[in-house]
Amino acid sequence: MKSNIAVNADRIAADIDALAVITEPDKPWTRRAFTPMFLKGRAYVEKIFRDAGLQTRIDAAGNLIGLRKGSVEGKGTLMLGSHTDTVPNGGRFDGIAGVIAGLEVARALQDAGIELQHDLEITDFLAEEVSIFGVSCIGSRGMIGVRPEEWLARTADTEKGRIDLAEGIRQVGGDPTQAGGRTDVKAFLELHIEQGTVLESEKIDIGIVGAITGITRFEILIEGRADHAGTTPMSKRYDALGAASVLVLGIESIARKLASEKGYFAGTVGEFSMEPNAANVVPSHVRMLIDARAVDPAVMEEFVTTLYALCTETAAERQVTIHEPRKVSNAVPTPMSEMVTDVLAASAARIGATTRPMVSGAGHDAAYLSKIAPAAMVFIASKDGRSHAAEEWSDNDAISLGAAVLYEAILNLDKK
Amino acid sequence: MKSNIAVNADRIAADIDALAVITEPDKPWTRRAFTPMFLKGRAYVEKIFRDAGLQTRIDAAGNLIGLRKGSVEGKGTLMLGSHTDTVPNGGRFDGIAGVIAGLEVARALQDAGIELQHDLEITDFLAEEVSIFGVSCIGSRGMIGVRPEEWLARTADTEKGRIDLAEGIRQVGGDPTQAGGRTDVKAFLELHIEQGTVLESEKIDIGIVGAITGITRFEILIEGRADHAGTTPMSKRYDALGAASVLVLGIESIARKLASEKGYFAGTVGEFSMEPNAANVVPSHVRMLIDARAVDPAVMEEFVTTLYALCTETAAERQVTIHEPRKVSNAVPTPMSEMVTDVLAASAARIGATTRPMVSGAGHDAAYLSKIAPAAMVFIASKDGRSHAAEEWSDNDAISLGAAVLYEAILNLDKK
Repeated sequence: MKSNIAVNADRIAADIDALAVITEPDKPWTRRAFTPMFLKGRAYVEKIFRDAGLQTRIDAAGNLIGLRKGSVEGKGTLMLGSHTDTVPNGGRFDGIAGVIAGLEVARALQDAGIELQHDLEITDFLAEEVSIFGVSCIGSRGMIGVRPEEWLARTADTEKGRIDLAEGIRQVGGDPTQAGGRTDVKAFLELHIEQGTVLESEKIDIGIVGAITGITRFEILIEGRADHAGTTPMSKRYDALGAASVLVLGIESIARKLASEKGYFAGTVGEFSMEPNAANVVPSHVRMLIDARAVDPAVMEEFVTTLYALCTETAAERQVTIHEPRKVSNAVPTPMSEMVTDVLAASAARIGATTRPMVSGAGHDAAYLSKIAPAAMVFIASKDGRSHAAEEWSDNDAISLGAAVLYEAILNLDKK
Repeated sequence: MKSNIAVNADRIAADIDALAVITEPDKPWTRRAFTPMFLKGRAYVEKIFRDAGLQTRIDAAGNLIGLRKGSVEGKGTLMLGSHTDTVPNGGRFDGIAGVIAGLEVARALQDAGIELQHDLEITDFLAEEVSIFGVSCIGSRGMIGVRPEEWLARTADTEKGRIDLAEGIRQVGGDPTQAGGRTDVKAFLELHIEQGTVLESEKIDIGIVGAITGITRFEILIEGRADHAGTTPMSKRYDALGAASVLVLGIESIARKLASEKGYFAGTVGEFSMEPNAANVVPSHVRMLIDARAVDPAVMEEFVTTLYALCTETAAERQVTIHEPRKVSNAVPTPMSEMVTDVLAASAARIGATTRPMVSGAGHDAAYLSKIAPAAMVFIASKDGRSHAAEEWSDNDAISLGAAVLYEAILNLDKK
């Protein structure tokens, strides 16, 4: 552990451990947004926010905010934050590390007797993970005013019966009739676990996230012919599964090539189903869903072109019908603020932390906050890259070093 | 149409057309065993058996039998038969062609005033297809005494409520407490549609089936690692679907090679499922079921050895766990009687029908009858190889020529 950092690593460890105990007992680590366990976790976070001298409130979007007033009225707000909700069975550090790191920055400033000019806010965004209502980033979307109105009518079953999202937001203390309106945020920083293996394998302390990936999903339908598995000669089959296997390996090969040549790309066939799925029938239909991620639209374009060619070629070779890939969703990439990433790099250098520029392959609240303020993220290493799983782990030293970078960055940003 | 044949093609066409009308109206051609539509079809078959002068009965196993007595008491029985039940949505010719061809042989003998020494029986075997009770060849297994006792307790929903197979057999007129006991059958012949494209593509009239395939099914489980589809670099994935795709293409390639080198082999991945099957997660688990068919145990052995090597190699290359393929079922191949196939070949030659030796890639009642009597099968062409589908078609001329081969063969066998 670097000894020259301003934050207190033990306090960070104590808070994260305390939060870890607040979990569904049979499936650690689970604190899904809108559940009683989530509210219990939030009550704990609100208490430690208050213990640190922060003024707490729940905003209209349902976010828990701890405020440390600045010395200059109207100077605006520097915000640190992440989320305390989890997916089922995962989230020992995912989200909570960023909230506690933000809190620790506020405590360290207090310890050092430093008064910022700006207000400093630590935010626990509501429901960053896909929630019981089937949607994610509810709090950050709400804060910047882009939460779709129709989401409020989405329903979910809770211990108190079936409720809609509007009621869910009310239950956490928000006001679903209000959204957006923040014009005071001057910069936003989020610390998060990497959820990948780059930092661990390269033994680098800090990833400075320059962009959050775009995600495009494609559905591919393959139609062959259902024939008798015993009486149809091997040479006279139109096997949809065989064609699908060629596509799966082809997509993997294209994605590997783009990833190695263009810096970041990920292509995954995450959904796959087959019909008739009967032991003695040659498969006639396959549906697959491809999740493709790039930060450079030109790279995504290259993937699409190559994918279409692969489909055409495979259909011809195997004499099956492969429908043109259908784009079922498309989230554009989000560049982070170069001003803020420069501040982060300089801050890390000041305390001797090694860094590398990175791309976030996952979505984060920072992608939304970047629409209303200069924003960037700090990644710290995930053991084995695991996340959304019980094995998820990040060393406390790594989190503390990340918190120290945030501390330095806040000092720097406060002077701008 | 060959003009020198003894059977009446028009009668065959009329009967098959009449049976085709007896179908679930919304899904032709459906007459599933144990349903009212099946019993309606059987009533028609019993009527035309009687019209042809046959004595009809239902045996204990639930088979409908039409008997033409022979002239020599105790000489034994020559049996022709197949089935009148169908799968859902398919069976315009599958089964019924063999029953009507058998009936036509009896009628042609009658027309020609020929008295056989042997009894001649035309059998409509109960439930050759996978029935509503989930099992097949119920009648032929019952006739030879190998119908598993525990099957009688299997249940199915019918129009009259939930019944067990014992009750189902009683409802068609059988006696589930009795089985086996036939020692009088001297030879068994079954005409069936090919359900493949060999005869059609080679323009050959008659396939003389020398063996019915063995079927071994293997389950393969692949375990990779569920990782985040965005944050896990392409080079650090343990993608179960990628490994599964390598296996699917490998199995196809092995099967193609064995089929082209060894005469008959078929390998099909008929069942395939994946977990977690979520758009944004690298697949961690795949289960596949392989249906492998061979008539030569040495060929099946070669497939197994090559398959195991493929699994080991793929697991090593892709760093995933591939469990040793588990044999979930194994039906050994059934050789047909050489005496009977010789008779069939000579019979076909006598009327100028072209023939080729064939293997049946599907199971048939003849496989069971071959346990108690010399047996063989005659295949006639299926249009486009389609069966178990509404498009199933065989030309009446082809069926009639097959029936004529049976007629000649019965005359020949009667002299033995």
